[in-house]
Amino acid sequence: MRERVIINDVGPRDGLQNQPKILSSAEKILLIESLLAAQISHIELGAFVSPKAVPAMAGTDQIVAAFDKDQAEFSVLVPNQKGYDMALAAGSSTMAMVAYATQGMAQKNVHMSREQAADATIAMAAQAKQDGTTLLATIATSFECPFDGMADPGIVADATARFLDLGVDMVVIADTIGAGNPGQVRSLMNRLVRENSADKLACHFHDTRALGMANVYAALESGVRRFDASIGGLGGCPFAPGASGNIATEDTVMMLEQMGFDTGIDLDALMRASDLAVELTGTAPGGRAKAWLKPHLAKQHLNKNDNLK
Amino acid sequence: MRERVIINDVGPRDGLQNQPKILSSAEKILLIESLLAAQISHIELGAFVSPKAVPAMAGTDQIVAAFDKDQAEFSVLVPNQKGYDMALAAGSSTMAMVAYATQGMAQKNVHMSREQAADATIAMAAQAKQDGTTLLATIATSFECPFDGMADPGIVADATARFLDLGVDMVVIADTIGAGNPGQVRSLMNRLVRENSADKLACHFHDTRALGMANVYAALESGVRRFDASIGGLGGCPFAPGASGNIATEDTVMMLEQMGFDTGIDLDALMRASDLAVELTGTAPGGRAKAWLKPHLAKQHLNKNDNLK
Repeated sequence: MRERVIINDVGPRDGLQNQPKILSSAEKILLIESLLAAQISHIELGAFVSPKAVPAMAGTDQIVAAFDKDQAEFSVLVPNQKGYDMALAAGSSTMAMVAYATQGMAQKNVHMSREQAADATIAMAAQAKQDGTTLLATIATSFECPFDGMADPGIVADATARFLDLGVDMVVIADTIGAGNPGQVRSLMNRLVRENSADKLACHFHDTRALGMANVYAALESGVRRFDASIGGLGGCPFAPGASGNIATEDTVMMLEQMGFDTGIDLDALMRASDLAVELTGTAPGGRAKAWLKPHLAKQHLNKNDNLK
Repeated sequence: MRERVIINDVGPRDGLQNQPKILSSAEKILLIESLLAAQISHIELGAFVSPKAVPAMAGTDQIVAAFDKDQAEFSVLVPNQKGYDMALAAGSSTMAMVAYATQGMAQKNVHMSREQAADATIAMAAQAKQDGTTLLATIATSFECPFDGMADPGIVADATARFLDLGVDMVVIADTIGAGNPGQVRSLMNRLVRENSADKLACHFHDTRALGMANVYAALESGVRRFDASIGGLGGCPFAPGASGNIATEDTVMMLEQMGFDTGIDLDALMRASDLAVELTGTAPGGRAKAWLKPHLAKQHLNKNDNLK
């Protein structure tokens, strides 16, 4: 019996939000359908943010409306109460709110202090309980901030415990700019798992400095069993133009499956989803393991066919 | 006091051997000079193999002659006694011999059984003791073989212990095709460090499946403090055309330095060496962390200059 690890594909949100090309709602729906075809059970569909500020996320209500809730755990990012209300009205039942480990990123993203953003998350948790919705809280820049430098692990630990105590359903520890190293990840996630419960924690990594898979492995060693990843490695880093984006779903799934974990994901269909992500956005190549994975899977098929003779 | 980790740059050998473009001896010397300028203390200069079989390695005697022994620990790959003799005649004092964890790779590479290749390594260790040279033994396909599938950790453990007992100076555990995952690496390297001494062990990883840095981290956690890496991520995988090559020296050094280890390497000069590797071979981009690292280093300099005002 293999142990399950959950992959939450954030490509349609964090990935597309950081791509130069803006997809139509129809294209986004195609991409999400390809993720569902690969048996991905958790998908972040989009964000209820100002379409002026983030044009790539316009039309998220159409995306939410296009899918049945029983197909997967669909979440949407909401930056504030207004976003939450829009998401609720659109029929979303899992909202992802963003809190911050550092003042600089909180000010830059939502013009609030870190403490104000944390209070807004807690208020939203109370609201979510009333509405019967699920609230995920992402703690951005949990390792390093492009404005303030290194994050304080104590602040992340306090926020995590407080959020979980006050009704947040899951805390996502985010290395927003891909600056964390596996030593840091191991140290912080060991502490958070010890002080809380591993099944209330997830990690969100970027591959900006090529450390994405090392950080996933470090968090796995600490007991984390849920990860955000992005199909085709869609995304990027506004602070390092040209650098890699979110960790690629295909790289992550391949590593996990090779390590003996069960992701429930169909790798063949995932390759097709990755091809589609690359085709739709014009970015290439999607995911670094793909150059190996695609011919390998094709060869497996050949062998299967041979056996049928 | 930061703990030292040794990087052995195998770009001039394993990297160039797997690139489509063959460099002249003058170009190879330029590349090696750029590595020395970055304070890299261990460099694999080339291989004494048949220039018919491996045209990219022709002229390794000229490369060896071009450098003073006190500039770094220079090693050369030798496939057999004949290669060893040529290396000795050329003035080499550190030879790297290849042994095999699997029969398929031994047969394919040297037309010997795994046992015969191991015996040849042990005979060479005796010869090296007589000559006062240093012998490194790489155990190829220590995790997985493209011909035989999964390697047997027991075979790797037995070979490692036997080599070290019988005079080999250091054993390099090689994931020749980049197929190992960090769980496997941790398990095997834990065992080898427990049964031997960490300072007699090194690891050699490829990034074929995007797991290079995860595998370095896993081996570090087991106590390994010496790694092969290749400037600019030069290299490739004959079994996965288009896939990433050896782990990039710059990615590895950056991760190690960020984790608090001391590599003794100058990252600025390393970026110049990586640029040169890309320029000479026509491959791009060299090393995945570079897109972040280069502008970051440039900014650091700007700040330093600002402080001088």
